[in-house]
Amino acid sequence: MPPDPSPRSELPDGHVVPRFAGISTFAHLPHSRELHDVDVAVVGVPFDGGASFRTGARFGPQKIRAGSSLLRAFNPALQVEPFAEFRVVDWGDVACSPISIEDSFAQIEQALGEVVRAEVFPLVLGGDHSISLPVLRALAKRHGPLGLVHFDAHPDTWDVHFGRKYSHATPFRRAIEEGLIEAHRYVQVGIRGSLPKASDLDDARGLGVTVLRTDDVVEMGLNATLDRIREIATGRVHVSLDIDVVDPAFAPGTGTPEVGGLSSREIVRLVRGLGPLELTGFDLVEVSPPYDHGEITAILAANLVYELLSTRVGRMRPKG
Amino acid sequence: MPPDPSPRSELPDGHVVPRFAGISTFAHLPHSRELHDVDVAVVGVPFDGGASFRTGARFGPQKIRAGSSLLRAFNPALQVEPFAEFRVVDWGDVACSPISIEDSFAQIEQALGEVVRAEVFPLVLGGDHSISLPVLRALAKRHGPLGLVHFDAHPDTWDVHFGRKYSHATPFRRAIEEGLIEAHRYVQVGIRGSLPKASDLDDARGLGVTVLRTDDVVEMGLNATLDRIREIATGRVHVSLDIDVVDPAFAPGTGTPEVGGLSSREIVRLVRGLGPLELTGFDLVEVSPPYDHGEITAILAANLVYELLSTRVGRMRPKG
Amino acid sequence: MPPDPSPRSELPDGHVVPRFAGISTFAHLPHSRELHDVDVAVVGVPFDGGASFRTGARFGPQKIRAGSSLLRAFNPALQVEPFAEFRVVDWGDVACSPISIEDSFAQIEQALGEVVRAEVFPLVLGGDHSISLPVLRALAKRHGPLGLVHFDAHPDTWDVHFGRKYSHATPFRRAIEEGLIEAHRYVQVGIRGSLPKASDLDDARGLGVTVLRTDDVVEMGLNATLDRIREIATGRVHVSLDIDVVDPAFAPGTGTPEVGGLSSREIVRLVRGLGPLELTGFDLVEVSPPYDHGEITAILAANLVYELLSTRVGRMRPKG
Amino acid sequence: MPPDPSPRSELPDGHVVPRFAGISTFAHLPHSRELHDVDVAVVGVPFDGGASFRTGARFGPQKIRAGSSLLRAFNPALQVEPFAEFRVVDWGDVACSPISIEDSFAQIEQALGEVVRAEVFPLVLGGDHSISLPVLRALAKRHGPLGLVHFDAHPDTWDVHFGRKYSHATPFRRAIEEGLIEAHRYVQVGIRGSLPKASDLDDARGLGVTVLRTDDVVEMGLNATLDRIREIATGRVHVSLDIDVVDPAFAPGTGTPEVGGLSSREIVRLVRGLGPLELTGFDLVEVSPPYDHGEITAILAANLVYELLSTRVGRMRPKG
Amino acid sequence: MPPDPSPRSELPDGHVVPRFAGISTFAHLPHSRELHDVDVAVVGVPFDGGASFRTGARFGPQKIRAGSSLLRAFNPALQVEPFAEFRVVDWGDVACSPISIEDSFAQIEQALGEVVRAEVFPLVLGGDHSISLPVLRALAKRHGPLGLVHFDAHPDTWDVHFGRKYSHATPFRRAIEEGLIEAHRYVQVGIRGSLPKASDLDDARGLGVTVLRTDDVVEMGLNATLDRIREIATGRVHVSLDIDVVDPAFAPGTGTPEVGGLSSREIVRLVRGLGPLELTGFDLVEVSPPYDHGEITAILAANLVYELLSTRVGRMRPKG
Amino acid sequence: MPPDPSPRSELPDGHVVPRFAGISTFAHLPHSRELHDVDVAVVGVPFDGGASFRTGARFGPQKIRAGSSLLRAFNPALQVEPFAEFRVVDWGDVACSPISIEDSFAQIEQALGEVVRAEVFPLVLGGDHSISLPVLRALAKRHGPLGLVHFDAHPDTWDVHFGRKYSHATPFRRAIEEGLIEAHRYVQVGIRGSLPKASDLDDARGLGVTVLRTDDVVEMGLNATLDRIREIATGRVHVSLDIDVVDPAFAPGTGTPEVGGLSSREIVRLVRGLGPLELTGFDLVEVSPPYDHGEITAILAANLVYELLSTRVGRMRPKG
Repeated sequence: MPPDPSPRSELPDGHVVPRFAGISTFAHLPHSRELHDVDVAVVGVPFDGGASFRTGARFGPQKIRAGSSLLRAFNPALQVEPFAEFRVVDWGDVACSPISIEDSFAQIEQALGEVVRAEVFPLVLGGDHSISLPVLRALAKRHGPLGLVHFDAHPDTWDVHFGRKYSHATPFRRAIEEGLIEAHRYVQVGIRGSLPKASDLDDARGLGVTVLRTDDVVEMGLNATLDRIREIATGRVHVSLDIDVVDPAFAPGTGTPEVGGLSSREIVRLVRGLGPLELTGFDLVEVSPPYDHGEITAILAANLVYELLSTRVGRMRPKG
Repeated sequence: MPPDPSPRSELPDGHVVPRFAGISTFAHLPHSRELHDVDVAVVGVPFDGGASFRTGARFGPQKIRAGSSLLRAFNPALQVEPFAEFRVVDWGDVACSPISIEDSFAQIEQALGEVVRAEVFPLVLGGDHSISLPVLRALAKRHGPLGLVHFDAHPDTWDVHFGRKYSHATPFRRAIEEGLIEAHRYVQVGIRGSLPKASDLDDARGLGVTVLRTDDVVEMGLNATLDRIREIATGRVHVSLDIDVVDPAFAPGTGTPEVGGLSSREIVRLVRGLGPLELTGFDLVEVSPPYDHGEITAILAANLVYELLSTRVGRMRPKG
Repeated sequence: MPPDPSPRSELPDGHVVPRFAGISTFAHLPHSRELHDVDVAVVGVPFDGGASFRTGARFGPQKIRAGSSLLRAFNPALQVEPFAEFRVVDWGDVACSPISIEDSFAQIEQALGEVVRAEVFPLVLGGDHSISLPVLRALAKRHGPLGLVHFDAHPDTWDVHFGRKYSHATPFRRAIEEGLIEAHRYVQVGIRGSLPKASDLDDARGLGVTVLRTDDVVEMGLNATLDRIREIATGRVHVSLDIDVVDPAFAPGTGTPEVGGLSSREIVRLVRGLGPLELTGFDLVEVSPPYDHGEITAILAANLVYELLSTRVGRMRPKG
Repeated sequence: MPPDPSPRSELPDGHVVPRFAGISTFAHLPHSRELHDVDVAVVGVPFDGGASFRTGARFGPQKIRAGSSLLRAFNPALQVEPFAEFRVVDWGDVACSPISIEDSFAQIEQALGEVVRAEVFPLVLGGDHSISLPVLRALAKRHGPLGLVHFDAHPDTWDVHFGRKYSHATPFRRAIEEGLIEAHRYVQVGIRGSLPKASDLDDARGLGVTVLRTDDVVEMGLNATLDRIREIATGRVHVSLDIDVVDPAFAPGTGTPEVGGLSSREIVRLVRGLGPLELTGFDLVEVSPPYDHGEITAILAANLVYELLSTRVGRMRPKG
Repeated sequence: MPPDPSPRSELPDGHVVPRFAGISTFAHLPHSRELHDVDVAVVGVPFDGGASFRTGARFGPQKIRAGSSLLRAFNPALQVEPFAEFRVVDWGDVACSPISIEDSFAQIEQALGEVVRAEVFPLVLGGDHSISLPVLRALAKRHGPLGLVHFDAHPDTWDVHFGRKYSHATPFRRAIEEGLIEAHRYVQVGIRGSLPKASDLDDARGLGVTVLRTDDVVEMGLNATLDRIREIATGRVHVSLDIDVVDPAFAPGTGTPEVGGLSSREIVRLVRGLGPLELTGFDLVEVSPPYDHGEITAILAANLVYELLSTRVGRMRPKG
Repeated sequence: MPPDPSPRSELPDGHVVPRFAGISTFAHLPHSRELHDVDVAVVGVPFDGGASFRTGARFGPQKIRAGSSLLRAFNPALQVEPFAEFRVVDWGDVACSPISIEDSFAQIEQALGEVVRAEVFPLVLGGDHSISLPVLRALAKRHGPLGLVHFDAHPDTWDVHFGRKYSHATPFRRAIEEGLIEAHRYVQVGIRGSLPKASDLDDARGLGVTVLRTDDVVEMGLNATLDRIREIATGRVHVSLDIDVVDPAFAPGTGTPEVGGLSSREIVRLVRGLGPLELTGFDLVEVSPPYDHGEITAILAANLVYELLSTRVGRMRPKG
């Protein structure tokens, strides 16, 4: 992190400053809470109190930052320099309570609200999947009901979990009920694994959601999958990516691993293909560092954030 | 595990009882040794005294049980609720001796014999691959000579290992010699890696066994592979799955890892494709927890047991 | 676990049944929820939603059970066979909610209430330290206000944590306020490390609590420490042991590690020295398996439960 | 390692001598520095002082040797027994300085020079990628300018790194400048990930190098990729394989992991396809054991060395 | 890290902001390179190119920062609030070259020079032990020849290492030769383990250095050891602490572990006892995260920095 | 390993040849099976088929060798250069069968017999504790009945284990029965933990064995313990050290860990104190690398072998 605290997204030259040196921010971007003149903010949401199996995602933002230290300026696949086109900062973390999901939701919604009101595009690092609900609350308050591209092994559209309305298994049903997203513009990609009830996928589909199971993606191929995503996710759209959409071989560090998932090459291609969408925000959740090894999950997560940002070039107009 | 000890395969509701809570049985099934009215039994065989490289598979049953805790009632790929159609119990482990392969074989054969005589379908959790011999002894005693679908990186049809007849490298030659399986109904799938002698595969083929190397599977594709399996494995058939058929990226926790293996998606599809066979039993072996990480091998193993069980619906008639 | 479900605390003979075989219960004790004729019950409380730093203690009961598999019948240090003198069962886990501390507290209090009302001595496996509050509620309802021996690196007597009354940092202030324990019969042992405010220890002392810091224990020696504990903890007494009282070298798998702690030899001796107290219950908390290695923390925890139980022989009268 | 120290490449019989027994040499080959009558030598170069991110590759040779212990005599994919056709020895390691890249380069060049002058084909185990420069110096001194097949996620053709000419990011630009390799006979395979500057790939291409990105390989397919490689790498050719060409799921133990890489099956097939080339040497670099798990990276590396050696049969004429 | 960038050492309230949240700086101190009005600066020196066995210490500063996140305001052992009495900042890391020890020494000396000239007390986080030489150069330039308290398992006073003058085994011989420290005011504490030559300790003693082996410390006791340290280290003094002075049980994450070392309790007491010395700086080196587990080494290191800082209260006068 | 294969125990200069370089032999000693002119041989016995809980000790010799790479020529505690006074070689491993305890015992006895008959002092690296029986058979054949100093957490004097006479729990009862050792000259040191039966220690004592429990050692102190050992272990004596005598904090990588053990400092001092005994051999067993971390157990084991060897200087007369 350069001594200059003003938000400018020039990365330190990795041929001069080693990648492992310095205060750990996302991609060595400057840390700042000043949002004036900023286009994009990386925002950590270290909350995992909504997780039903393995926790640890509260350390997700810290480790994704560490995993991002190898990111460099130029994305040759998309032929863009995302940090050069936008002013990107690492906003730091929302100080959400580890012991109360209600308090945390309020803190997250308020923090994201600040970011969104400043017309800054948020790249959110979770945390477990419950955090997508307050993120969507902040986004929908500004943008109105959104479309949603939701990469996940699990539908996360259950109604009640442990007798409660809020957990990492329910955010998108709540989001539909609250009018934050519209079911007909909502597509789930990568669903797989066993389900509590035979009716679960029908329930999701009954809500009007389009479900593309991993088997569907494999059968259709990636191009057709992207076509289908673009067909559904029209208008202003949020992207929520649960790292467990990827196979545990590529992303062991997660809370509810399901076998038979996408490869890293496949998920990178899918994220790169989101360029044409009119995105308003992005969250990447469920990275659980205590179960990671060789930091490969955190590195994959950091790259997916980078790829998503890269698709924004040309679509977003820098401020001022 | 619910307080009611009677064998009924209703899983606790994972939306009420957390998946990490309770005495660890396979998929939270009831633990019972009472086989009356039972259709399927999960039987642990924690023996690894036949392993020639890394050991640790004696902890396989314990960790596969832990890895199974996320399994849920409904299998959407096959559109079945396997635990609802059958009465499935976790029988526990055979108390086999860690220091004598001969004693262990006797203990395993006797325990499996009880299960088989009760007309209960065994889902066996190894242990190293040597255990398949006493398992086959018990099965063949009831069903006569069997066909065999054998997923593995290694042929395991050597004659002598360290000067002895019994080890994890010889079970299927013994099984042929003892008339437990018939070579022309025996197919090996996923063989790869270097071999002690140029004649090894010919030896296997000389026995009459069909060998589908991983390269063959990749070239033929999964559908043709399944067709070939079904062509060979006619009549009553046992399935033996060595987790090292999968690449170490997907299954690091195993005893003799070979690179270049199947992906988790591929093995899941192959297991799902066994539905048409007339199965009499299943064993899954060589999961070695000390070399696992993030429990991804154990979770994969648990899912493969679940998929195999799911294929039985419609083929097996529940008792009574 | 023997097929016989009746609660009798005979361990399987480890010279016949391998220690790694069988459904994993505490020390291979029978699993039962029937409390008639039972003297002591091991009760898992897999809740970690009150933890403020590393979580993972929800897997504590499962891993302490695994770590207990080497426990054998005879304790030579105390010259007793604890499982032979009492009928001890593994009751299983309280199905507490992972996403709500309030719901969990109710579930824990209710479950422990059943155990206590049946005049069964509870050996509670946590879980984070917040669970001690509902445990004490259940105990005090039956026994009246208790004394408390509290081994810990941290006082856990803060008032408010993240704006809330309940967390793993506040249980014992709540317990004093609710009249569950009496401050003048409450001794904290092993406190060390930095504190949020200079007044924190004075606050604890201001409540009337006796604080023996690790430095005090080292200076006084273990015998004098035990004398002091026995002086304070008169009458009916609960023991709560946070594994972080031990140094991270001996117990790395914990949530808020503090350097400079007790050794395993020291904590074993202190627990053994509790024999003269009139105990009503015991909880051992804050074992966090994702941060453990070689399972050494879980094994230490299991041994401390065993030592505590061993001190009861002679003090408790078996039922019926 | 058999007691007979003479260099003969008969492996101990793995059905008699366990694979985990004995002094650890590559594939249990004899250790010898006598090069008379030797055709191929495995040479360790444990230097990682040129690495810019994670180090640890200094332990690469030791762990690749351990990972090679499962290699057996016959390669069924290529239908050859490589150790039977050639006399292969494990030469041991170059004693290169851990604290000076200049001293190490001199030591490496001198040691490899001895090997090459003795007309022995070197299989070099790194170390970080900087070591390829002194290896090429030794090879080019004997063979003249070489072609190069370079598997890697990164181009390693930068000019200056941290203000210096020598590091693991610059060896091939130096090699071109020094006339050790010819750019038009140099192909990079597997390049991917973000780059410091938009001009980086153009720079490499500007040197005359052919760059096949991972995306290109996937699009062209493996056969077309191999055709392209063979088109470019004419005449005498060196092969340099950075293990990070493989995805971190298959090779987590490396210094600068990049997501979206090749699978183990793909890299094995590419290496096997190098048979038609006129090779003069091989190095495999950037295996970093501290970040490996289950030893899967080391095992993959050992297999790639074995596959490369297997392709030599028929192409090389044994000495004498 | 609060948005306010001005250097003030108020920690965020850990009862409000979770310890795992926020950009990772030492103890959540503000990150700043502005040294005006600053009393103490934490300075990372992520260089490990001087290490002769395991590397990885380049990740030391990052992981010690993570390990420091639990540090709280008040040190009850010394009854001080160190961050309240001084203005302490996290200066970040020196951007030293990973591939050249000469370049790195210049970068380190220059950066430390800035800190020292600003009359700021440096708390240096290594890095391997070679970095102490440029640190001492910067300190001695301002303060003149210093005394030295050197905690270590190894003397680090060798003359030549791999034919070179600079490595992690030679800094203190160089420092004596360059007049940066005075041998008669230099005490080594904790030396143990085997040595290359019988004359090695005599060599150190021949230089005039006092060597207190671990055996001496154990025999004398900690109080007498501290008396001896204070006798020798008169005048202005630097403290250099190699974490391997501690036993590998307490500090596994280090480069050249030696068994039979101090416990964490012992090293904490020794550091606390340095209060009476007239310190000018402190470095803590050789924390190697790839070999750490449960982060226990990093947490111990962070605590030792905190204890050292705590001893300064009363001895140092805050700036203007 | 120097190219010269003749057995001379000059270590490579660690200031010239890095410690991580070269074929891995114990302390970089030459590997040789030629015993003429040799005084001491390090002999690996990679057998763990007698282990009843965690296995993995078959990888013990390989990892202890790796852990020995830091050993240097001079032992300052004992003021000796053990490798300079004797000709010490690394003999390699006994090729014992992994699948048959009977075959392995024959192989071990034969190999050790060769060593002993050549009047070479064996330093045996296990393997599990069952191997001590064939080692003692070989030694007693030459030296007659021996005394025994046995460091262990467990008595290993059970009669029958899993219905068999041979396992890692029975070697010393067999050795007494076979007249290999004499019970009145046999002392067990460090016994602790729970026991299967109340009579177990009395059984051992009934055999005439002296049992010093860890509690006894702590109470008596190390000097009195050594006095007692020397009183009992008169005449020719074997030393057998099970690494689990040490606490799991210091030696996590072992098969049957027991809490409350010795520290590394204590065991080092006890081994150093064996100098006055008339030793004929030494074995160190039960190092299980899959459960080790940071290699701290292997490093401790290597140091204990080194300390034992160091005590021989002055007691043994070099050959020829």
